[in-house]
Amino acid sequence: MKQSEKRIAEGVLFVDQYQLTMAQLYYRYGMHEKIAKFDHYFRSYPNYGTHQAGYCINAGLEWFVNWAREATFGDEEIDYLRGQTGQTGQRIFGDDFLAWLRSVDILGSIHLTAIPEGRVVHPSVPLTIVEGPLAIVQLIETALLNHLNYQTLIATKAARIHQAGQGGLMLEFGLRRAHEKGANAGARAALIGGADFTSNVGLSKVIGLPPKGTHAHSMVQAFMALGGDELAAFRAYAEIYPDDCLLLVDTINTLKSGVPNAITVFNELRNKGHRPVGIRLDSGDLAHLSIRSAKMLDEAGFPDVSIVLSNQLDELVLLQIISQIKEEAPSYGVDADRVIKRLVYGVGTNLITSRGASALDGVYKLVAVREDGKWQPAIKLSESTEKMTNPGHKRVWRLCDQRGRATADVLALYHEDLEAMDAIHLHHPSEKSIRRTLLRDDISHIETLHVDIYRDGQCVYDFPPLEAIRAQRIADLERLDIGVRRIVNPHVYHVSLTEALWEMKQELILQHRRTAYRNTQ
Amino acid sequence: MKQSEKRIAEGVLFVDQYQLTMAQLYYRYGMHEKIAKFDHYFRSYPNYGTHQAGYCINAGLEWFVNWAREATFGDEEIDYLRGQTGQTGQRIFGDDFLAWLRSVDILGSIHLTAIPEGRVVHPSVPLTIVEGPLAIVQLIETALLNHLNYQTLIATKAARIHQAGQGGLMLEFGLRRAHEKGANAGARAALIGGADFTSNVGLSKVIGLPPKGTHAHSMVQAFMALGGDELAAFRAYAEIYPDDCLLLVDTINTLKSGVPNAITVFNELRNKGHRPVGIRLDSGDLAHLSIRSAKMLDEAGFPDVSIVLSNQLDELVLLQIISQIKEEAPSYGVDADRVIKRLVYGVGTNLITSRGASALDGVYKLVAVREDGKWQPAIKLSESTEKMTNPGHKRVWRLCDQRGRATADVLALYHEDLEAMDAIHLHHPSEKSIRRTLLRDDISHIETLHVDIYRDGQCVYDFPPLEAIRAQRIADLERLDIGVRRIVNPHVYHVSLTEALWEMKQELILQHRRTAYRNTQ
Repeated sequence: MKQSEKRIAEGVLFVDQYQLTMAQLYYRYGMHEKIAKFDHYFRSYPNYGTHQAGYCINAGLEWFVNWAREATFGDEEIDYLRGQTGQTGQRIFGDDFLAWLRSVDILGSIHLTAIPEGRVVHPSVPLTIVEGPLAIVQLIETALLNHLNYQTLIATKAARIHQAGQGGLMLEFGLRRAHEKGANAGARAALIGGADFTSNVGLSKVIGLPPKGTHAHSMVQAFMALGGDELAAFRAYAEIYPDDCLLLVDTINTLKSGVPNAITVFNELRNKGHRPVGIRLDSGDLAHLSIRSAKMLDEAGFPDVSIVLSNQLDELVLLQIISQIKEEAPSYGVDADRVIKRLVYGVGTNLITSRGASALDGVYKLVAVREDGKWQPAIKLSESTEKMTNPGHKRVWRLCDQRGRATADVLALYHEDLEAMDAIHLHHPSEKSIRRTLLRDDISHIETLHVDIYRDGQCVYDFPPLEAIRAQRIADLERLDIGVRRIVNPHVYHVSLTEALWEMKQELILQHRRTAYRNTQ
Repeated sequence: MKQSEKRIAEGVLFVDQYQLTMAQLYYRYGMHEKIAKFDHYFRSYPNYGTHQAGYCINAGLEWFVNWAREATFGDEEIDYLRGQTGQTGQRIFGDDFLAWLRSVDILGSIHLTAIPEGRVVHPSVPLTIVEGPLAIVQLIETALLNHLNYQTLIATKAARIHQAGQGGLMLEFGLRRAHEKGANAGARAALIGGADFTSNVGLSKVIGLPPKGTHAHSMVQAFMALGGDELAAFRAYAEIYPDDCLLLVDTINTLKSGVPNAITVFNELRNKGHRPVGIRLDSGDLAHLSIRSAKMLDEAGFPDVSIVLSNQLDELVLLQIISQIKEEAPSYGVDADRVIKRLVYGVGTNLITSRGASALDGVYKLVAVREDGKWQPAIKLSESTEKMTNPGHKRVWRLCDQRGRATADVLALYHEDLEAMDAIHLHHPSEKSIRRTLLRDDISHIETLHVDIYRDGQCVYDFPPLEAIRAQRIADLERLDIGVRRIVNPHVYHVSLTEALWEMKQELILQHRRTAYRNTQ
């Protein structure tokens, strides 16, 4: 797309058509300024097929707000909508509605409440709550979901890969296989969730981190095609980047050519007073080659240079690689933990596209409408009980048990103060028979998860820098049970409703069923 | 991301760091202006786990060229690179290289040859061939792969879903679950591959199609929360959009509430002289509900209104739905084919994220370097023979058999004229023993697939409009064997090398192995 087209296609028209037709309907029926509340949440953790997430890492909020700040209906947008025609050639949008649309100030009209980026989050918990004129909060649904679904998906994948890599340095390399310009949001989310750096230059500039990279096979190939060889290519790289020399050693043969040539060049660098950085392995049995390369580097007197692994890495591959190194290293007289400690992970496609689970099922549902100064809860019925919304004006609490571990996220009616309760009665969101009671004395820590982002149309939130978001992620993950953090078959974390919310929900379901029954008689 | 940041992060710095460090190395070694040739191709069809593609639809070229046209190193980019420092605080990029970089005119420096968008393409076939100064063709690798991998992935998925839907109208609805701004490229690719329209308003404007949509559950919910009901919501929609009335009927109960209320409103519309458009089913057993709804609509005198299906559709789900309708419709006294003919498919997440295969493994490999006016072929060895590149300056031919079906894509040396050969000897790209001979008389049609896009820095190609790209896709698909088009377990289409190319490749492999062996003695 051209820059000029991008301004249009990524602005306020980054929206599904039906949001506009519904907004006009609300406008014509005088419903557009009714104050409504929508909850944004996801229904289930990403399921990668052979493995599943037991938590998600919330991400994307700041970039959604950036979108909303710049999303306005200007001349070009209004002209375009004015020109739209329906089946019989008549105009779809009237001048009255278009005049109103032009006056819309999205963030100036809403309250926006959200769980901060970097926090561990779970299904059914409202991550973002939007309150404002019905037509406006409806209009932003598509862009909100688009921005938040994807970054949360990728931050989650990054956290899992980081965890499987046992804290080793992690580099995001996925730009070439990402979903086009989504690559930048993906790289940001990866940096929130677990990646330390990215190879993506532009995004690194925006985010304020140095971009990372080595070289490609094509550099060695180019030297060879011009009559040189791998060693000449390595020497050239070392000459130009003597203090940043990281060599890709698998273009010809990793153990017979690449590593020996790298060691030759590393010796030359050392003789000139430089410290070589590492080697990169991009094919073959990465566990085996890590051990063998580590041994060769050790014997050559380079016990500290890194071994960067790449090639279709994800959390399962890393679990396997680390397990194999532990099993295989002793037979080469190599200390497995020392090999593992020097590993760096270059993660591409599987991270930036969240392979196996390429979308998060985030939704945005009407939960209440304000009438005569009071919230009227709204519910969406469904044949499957777990797809029903949790209605009303709510707050979310996180409870930690006596070990300091998070034990439940609790959806409560807004006025309920869980901190002041002696006993908290919890209900499963949809299974009537599943309930438990927590005594206040058994709770070591209790907090509400939401913060205000926009209040009365004013930004009341300082978006934290990347480092603070990462620190939040680390703190939240440490507070999770190890079983919940498990890569494969994680324990299910409890998301519960308070008794009051449960009862309100049941009453609303009954009431709607009665109405539906009456209507179909 | 803010607009101001986007200009930087989506321009020429939409690149992996190592492309820049390699470019500087080439510059310092005087290799940067050596003329090199890179082939872009993918290695394997998307594999969705339980089903696999037997062809791909090429897409993304025009948007890649749009990117390249606007990708230049201006002050901000150069200043950023000047500020980059390595491990010891020294600058990574020197002023000499940065001065050269600033002078780079990407498209003004290269030949760009490509297979047009919308064409059926296969693994190992160069889709895009870039020829130009080594440093420049290296610099565009990341963006080229990013733009072409994703759109080809999605156009392919769209073609499969369209095929499974037996030609029914298909709407792209995936914006909310797409990988952030990649949504626009995804919608474009979907429109190339099989979708008729998209709900994405901005992209529709850019592409010149009307956006499509209905309404959401939230509209019905909003009426209910304000004391109204589903019928009131439907009546409101019909009043505002009398000639575009498409009603979502599953908010309460599809057969007991939604369809009867829709019929009531359709009757009211008809009495006022309007023609209702359709209903949408978004949950439950879509096959069963299609039959039952069709019967109710027929009996009410609306045999022509559409039934739009949505909810996690993909090619397998559609295969199943259509199969079930054929099996189940007769028991309701309904003609299955008539039900199927009125179906419209709203396809979201599974299309725009290519669920099951979230990336195409497109690569960009050095295949030749020009020395003393002659092409020196370059090869990348690999332990797996199918990962070796096909070296040299090549052309690609497509051969059709006597039935007019495409029977092979053939990679040939550039000077070879397959049209003039009496017999064409074909080799499997990596399996020595697999070969066959086609007689010229058995070939009904022969063509080369590439067209010139940029020649000597000038655009020599008229990018075709969407309709022409779609027509090309339809023509190419018709020429494929039905077994190759199959959704599950498709036949393998032949991609072959000519004898001359095969021999050159073997010679190069031998030569490199000898060198590698010598180097490791």
